Amino acid sequence: MVSPVLVSTWSFGFPANEEGAKVLSANGPALEAAIVTGAHAELDPTVDSVGYGGLPNSEGGVQLDAAVMEGRTGDAGAVGALEGIVPSLRVAERVMRETRHVLLVGEGAKRFALDRGFNEQDLITENAWKWYEEFKRTGKAGDFFDTIGVIALDAEGDLAATCTTSGLSAKLPGRVGDSPLIGAGLYCDNEVGSAAATGVGEDILKICGSFLVVELMRQGRSPQEACQEAVRRCARHQRRPEPTQCCFIALHREGEVGGASTRHGFQYAHWRDGKNTLVDAPHLGRDFE
Amino acid sequence: MVSPVLVSTWSFGFPANEEGAKVLSANGPALEAAIVTGAHAELDPTVDSVGYGGLPNSEGGVQLDAAVMEGRTGDAGAVGALEGIVPSLRVAERVMRETRHVLLVGEGAKRFALDRGFNEQDLITENAWKWYEEFKRTGKAGDFFDTIGVIALDAEGDLAATCTTSGLSAKLPGRVGDSPLIGAGLYCDNEVGSAAATGVGEDILKICGSFLVVELMRQGRSPQEACQEAVRRCARHQRRPEPTQCCFIALHREGEVGGASTRHGFQYAHWRDGKNTLVDAPHLGRDFE
Repeated sequence: MVSPVLVSTWSFGFPANEEGAKVLSANGPALEAAIVTGAHAELDPTVDSVGYGGLPNSEGGVQLDAAVMEGRTGDAGAVGALEGIVPSLRVAERVMRETRHVLLVGEGAKRFALDRGFNEQDLITENAWKWYEEFKRTGKAGDFFDTIGVIALDAEGDLAATCTTSGLSAKLPGRVGDSPLIGAGLYCDNEVGSAAATGVGEDILKICGSFLVVELMRQGRSPQEACQEAVRRCARHQRRPEPTQCCFIALHREGEVGGASTRHGFQYAHWRDGKNTLVDAPHLGRDFE
Repeated sequence: MVSPVLVSTWSFGFPANEEGAKVLSANGPALEAAIVTGAHAELDPTVDSVGYGGLPNSEGGVQLDAAVMEGRTGDAGAVGALEGIVPSLRVAERVMRETRHVLLVGEGAKRFALDRGFNEQDLITENAWKWYEEFKRTGKAGDFFDTIGVIALDAEGDLAATCTTSGLSAKLPGRVGDSPLIGAGLYCDNEVGSAAATGVGEDILKICGSFLVVELMRQGRSPQEACQEAVRRCARHQRRPEPTQCCFIALHREGEVGGASTRHGFQYAHWRDGKNTLVDAPHLGRDFE
């Protein structure tokens, strides 16, 4: 028996962890814990970058990206630009379990969900609509791109990862970021560990960030070292003086945890042994070079 | 000055290479050569797995996946489940050059293309429709999943990669495979090399196949060794006695080329010094373990 661990991105990962931890405390599977954690953030209207309450795209529509991966089988499922269905992680899970595919997008993903009994609903909250009207008035979208990435280890030693987001605020319709892409927004392999990402999706997916973190752990790096090296790669790849915000969390199959980001402000919630902690992640330029 | 090289997947890569090679012979850029090569296959109605003439999904619709990446800037653009527009690689190129995004899918991708002046057309050929009617009658889709992956090195030493496909025959609507995913169907980095993949997209994307090939070259493996190691990883990851067909091509920044596949039958077209050659790639179990 292994001591279960649950890690998720940002401060909204803290209350979400409390939900997912119930699954792990009852010796439930890592994948279910990671889905419950992410789905909690999707259904929370105060989280403005994930699921219901997420900020809309440039035309006022909310489109969700989500993915699940399990480390024992290496199997995965995902949806991109999905409209009107939450939790999108549950749709991604069904893609994994019930099709020969990994990723369904747009109208096809929505029809798949409706065929499986998910209900369509309006995902725009009053606050999100206020933001949209302000965006239309000023043309200023701000930079909202938070994502809940979740990585989990269960008592059986199985690993899982999930990732879900409403994406970059004011994105073009149909834009898909790193979150639903296996190896970009999330990755896991029972032989090594699990990783997830949040930040500017385009910059994360161009270096297959989460896959890179797992490969670095495969080569013997600690989760912390692996996250820092992926952050360095992100910054180098951008060829800009000031890199965008790109953040990683990692979990080794033996339970060790790490996290790092290009810029200040990234936090992750780390649950183990019944205790949930919000951690300030080290960032490039201040805490490491 | 470097001696230009152009490599593309399958026997239909041979005539496509002849087109792309004209760009390289005139000292044109690698990315343009790789786009011209892939676009040639897209517009060829006899290629039943790419662009116009590609086999439809389970509902009779043709949906295209395509991506471009350039090694000098690390920039990329892609479209997934795009309907009614060829060459889809030219749409992917516009996503890269004209948006802050990398991947647009479905209706959003189509509207982006129409807004930029691409014309909508029916992509179903008579042969593809005959195949679809046979599929509806028998329920048998066969296994059609070929993709044109193209990797190029130009006289300036710049690398590029492109990948385009109509995807798995009889796929679910909205299914996106490895081809438009950066690091799955294609990857390149001027510091290292370029790679592309073809085969069963789900099994390639679950190991970030093309990114893995480039990372292995970064660690010092030859292009041939890197492709073979990615093939082994594919086979291990599948945990099945008989792996699906997964194939890789690789090009080192100094010009060396490699290719390998899980199963017999994979060929790639290799152009350099004015000479185009069709190469039988080594496959797992016969040529290497």
